[in-house]
Amino acid sequence: MSDTVKYQLDEEHLPKHWYNINADLPVPLDPVLHPGTQQPITADELAVIFPRAVIEQEMSTEREIAIPEPVREVYRQWRPSPLFRARRLEKALNTPAKIYYKYEGVSPAGSHKPNTAIPQAFYNKIEGVKRIATETGAGQWGSSLALAGSFFGLEIVVYMVKVSFNQKPYRRAFMETFGAQCIASPSTTTASGRAILAEHPDSTGSLGIAISEAVEVAAQRDDTKYALGSVLNHVLLHQTVTGIEAMEQMAMAGAHPDMIIGCTGGGSNFAGLAFPYLGKQLREGGNIEFIAVEPSACPTLTKGLFAYDFGDTAHLTPLCKMFTLGSSFVPPGFHAGGLRYHGMAPQVSHLAKLGYIAPRSYNQLECFAAGLQFAKAEGIIPAPEANHAVRAAIEEAEKCRESGEAKTILFMLSGHGNFDMQAYTDYLGGKLKDLVYAESEVAMALAGLPSVG
Amino acid sequence: MSDTVKYQLDEEHLPKHWYNINADLPVPLDPVLHPGTQQPITADELAVIFPRAVIEQEMSTEREIAIPEPVREVYRQWRPSPLFRARRLEKALNTPAKIYYKYEGVSPAGSHKPNTAIPQAFYNKIEGVKRIATETGAGQWGSSLALAGSFFGLEIVVYMVKVSFNQKPYRRAFMETFGAQCIASPSTTTASGRAILAEHPDSTGSLGIAISEAVEVAAQRDDTKYALGSVLNHVLLHQTVTGIEAMEQMAMAGAHPDMIIGCTGGGSNFAGLAFPYLGKQLREGGNIEFIAVEPSACPTLTKGLFAYDFGDTAHLTPLCKMFTLGSSFVPPGFHAGGLRYHGMAPQVSHLAKLGYIAPRSYNQLECFAAGLQFAKAEGIIPAPEANHAVRAAIEEAEKCRESGEAKTILFMLSGHGNFDMQAYTDYLGGKLKDLVYAESEVAMALAGLPSVG
Repeated sequence: MSDTVKYQLDEEHLPKHWYNINADLPVPLDPVLHPGTQQPITADELAVIFPRAVIEQEMSTEREIAIPEPVREVYRQWRPSPLFRARRLEKALNTPAKIYYKYEGVSPAGSHKPNTAIPQAFYNKIEGVKRIATETGAGQWGSSLALAGSFFGLEIVVYMVKVSFNQKPYRRAFMETFGAQCIASPSTTTASGRAILAEHPDSTGSLGIAISEAVEVAAQRDDTKYALGSVLNHVLLHQTVTGIEAMEQMAMAGAHPDMIIGCTGGGSNFAGLAFPYLGKQLREGGNIEFIAVEPSACPTLTKGLFAYDFGDTAHLTPLCKMFTLGSSFVPPGFHAGGLRYHGMAPQVSHLAKLGYIAPRSYNQLECFAAGLQFAKAEGIIPAPEANHAVRAAIEEAEKCRESGEAKTILFMLSGHGNFDMQAYTDYLGGKLKDLVYAESEVAMALAGLPSVG
Repeated sequence: MSDTVKYQLDEEHLPKHWYNINADLPVPLDPVLHPGTQQPITADELAVIFPRAVIEQEMSTEREIAIPEPVREVYRQWRPSPLFRARRLEKALNTPAKIYYKYEGVSPAGSHKPNTAIPQAFYNKIEGVKRIATETGAGQWGSSLALAGSFFGLEIVVYMVKVSFNQKPYRRAFMETFGAQCIASPSTTTASGRAILAEHPDSTGSLGIAISEAVEVAAQRDDTKYALGSVLNHVLLHQTVTGIEAMEQMAMAGAHPDMIIGCTGGGSNFAGLAFPYLGKQLREGGNIEFIAVEPSACPTLTKGLFAYDFGDTAHLTPLCKMFTLGSSFVPPGFHAGGLRYHGMAPQVSHLAKLGYIAPRSYNQLECFAAGLQFAKAEGIIPAPEANHAVRAAIEEAEKCRESGEAKTILFMLSGHGNFDMQAYTDYLGGKLKDLVYAESEVAMALAGLPSVG
């Protein structure tokens, strides 16, 4: 008989709570500041753009936060998601390492993003909101919120970073299929978009710009709120459903990870898998290595500053203490659009600064090569973002081949690449190259950081 | 607490056998004939293009055929696949009907096709075959065989119907990602391709032509065999893994279907879900209605003749008794490329002829409208082929709304539409229209049927 490769939890094992790492931080997070006063922001001030329940979660230090039953009902469509042992990949790499991956591509939008889109739509719905504005990079988040809006009867407006809007027309079609409106950003529909276009008519956009546009739209109307697909505490909180499941599945497999790997753009898929383990390690000790993988062309954790910065380009959002490349920095147009963000989740930044998370970066070609190797062995074509995690996992497994160590590697395969086949077509056709960010642009962006306490 | 919407079987419930309806047919199938002699074909004659194990299955009348353990090991990656209750769709339709669907889009290729690609690759591998040639319409089958080839270390050559090759470049990229070679058909690489191009230089291709090219390539080299993704008995046999699972899942749900619906191109996804139920009904009685849904622009079961015909255009394949529009008929280029076939599985044809299967047809616009309605409610964008089944399920649920009957509808959602977003883009943009086949072409094709027995 063959060895098990898939660890599938019964529906009864769908988590009832999310895990909040704020309860276990050795040093608390620095406060979020109001963009105008630069004083710690209040719940009332945040209520202009977020529903109350989300703000409570953003500020909570409770360890466990209950997942509402209507959210669990939608989660049940694809959760618990499977955890796989990558036996064919191990064999192809001829490594003694044991490689496991948690696979979030089984969600209806094809990534981990619905884990937070569903609760965010739910909380908005029960508080009477009619419309949500948001931004999207690669389109995973916009697709997920479009889906969630369709389930809960909310109107969704998505500002999609222009370079991705053009690279991924089918992501737009996906959002429109679910009834959402999808606008290329920077656009002429907002003051912040028009300001960018006046200065840079050919701007390919960035998450920072798209966030400005969405926040502006949300602040304009009482019936409209804003939703963010990564970075913030409540988003990372919602994603912990993946790590909680993974702990149980790894236990089923009788395995304990030596390292946990995820790609980081805003930080949420990495945190979702890592934080339940990291929190346990903070409470009880342990020696799991937590590896956050980012693109070399947008090296927030590896080359950024740990400082207060805005989440967006037009400086409409609150100020967060985080690793940042400067809110005016526009990363080059590489294919992992979901990783093209100047900042990083404050929780991930804080824990990286404290030395609990080890960041590293890779170029896009080596990531696509890893993705192809993974696909041939495991049968799943990863999203370009997820290829960064795959690359790190393969590198670690290759180190084990050299050293003879049988380490246990657990990584997050955050989504499939079905909507990214143009990137694979370009890669297979030899048309992709590694992109380099302009160091002078980052220096300039960092020079413009707000001077805060 | 909410009602269950997903019925997920444990891994231990992965079927150990496929179900062979040949064991339960009230009248046996007419024999398959050699294309030259027009005499019943022998196993030795078929061995030129198929491995022995597959030929045995093709001819078997055993009710249960064991699934080899290495095949079950690969199946376990995504099987048992989920069965869902479409509660949100029921609510949107305001129907008393109970709608269930078996979802095969969870497979790594996104459809039911790997259910047969995996065993076919396995049987070829253990018999020493190095290379498999095949055809593909929409690309689902080619993708699945590419995947299976990658798992078992076989070279794969795919002839892809030209209209789909052009409509779906990402399906080609998918196949190439797994190392397969993908060629637009008709091509200049085969005598049958060149003959078609000489007569029709602008030919958009058809499954019949692509089959000719692949069979020709397989017959040329000893180390090369041919694989078919639908139509034949062994393919339908492999697909019954879905129906066997569904029977157990419907029992979990405490539900018994009043009707079972699937789309039909070659007939395999429909048969996979329907045959385990239909076989039971043939043995023990029952009153489930079996509804096969085809495109109005390629109406094999509803407008074809039940006669001996070739499976391909160049007349290289054996002759099967089946519903056919004539092997020289080239259907118009509608988006459900997987349903563009002139013939129909002999087993499905035979049972339709005997009155056990009720066929119906729909146009593409009404199918896309149904797909959109389904997506908005259930969160899954169906493949254009699967939209035909969705359309029928919605129509039946609407009839229940009129009559007040709470019928139980079970349909096969054979695949997702992630690679078909151009079709949805065209539909949403108002650029799609219903296509009509030329009745004169069908008349001519039928006039050219071989005169057999």
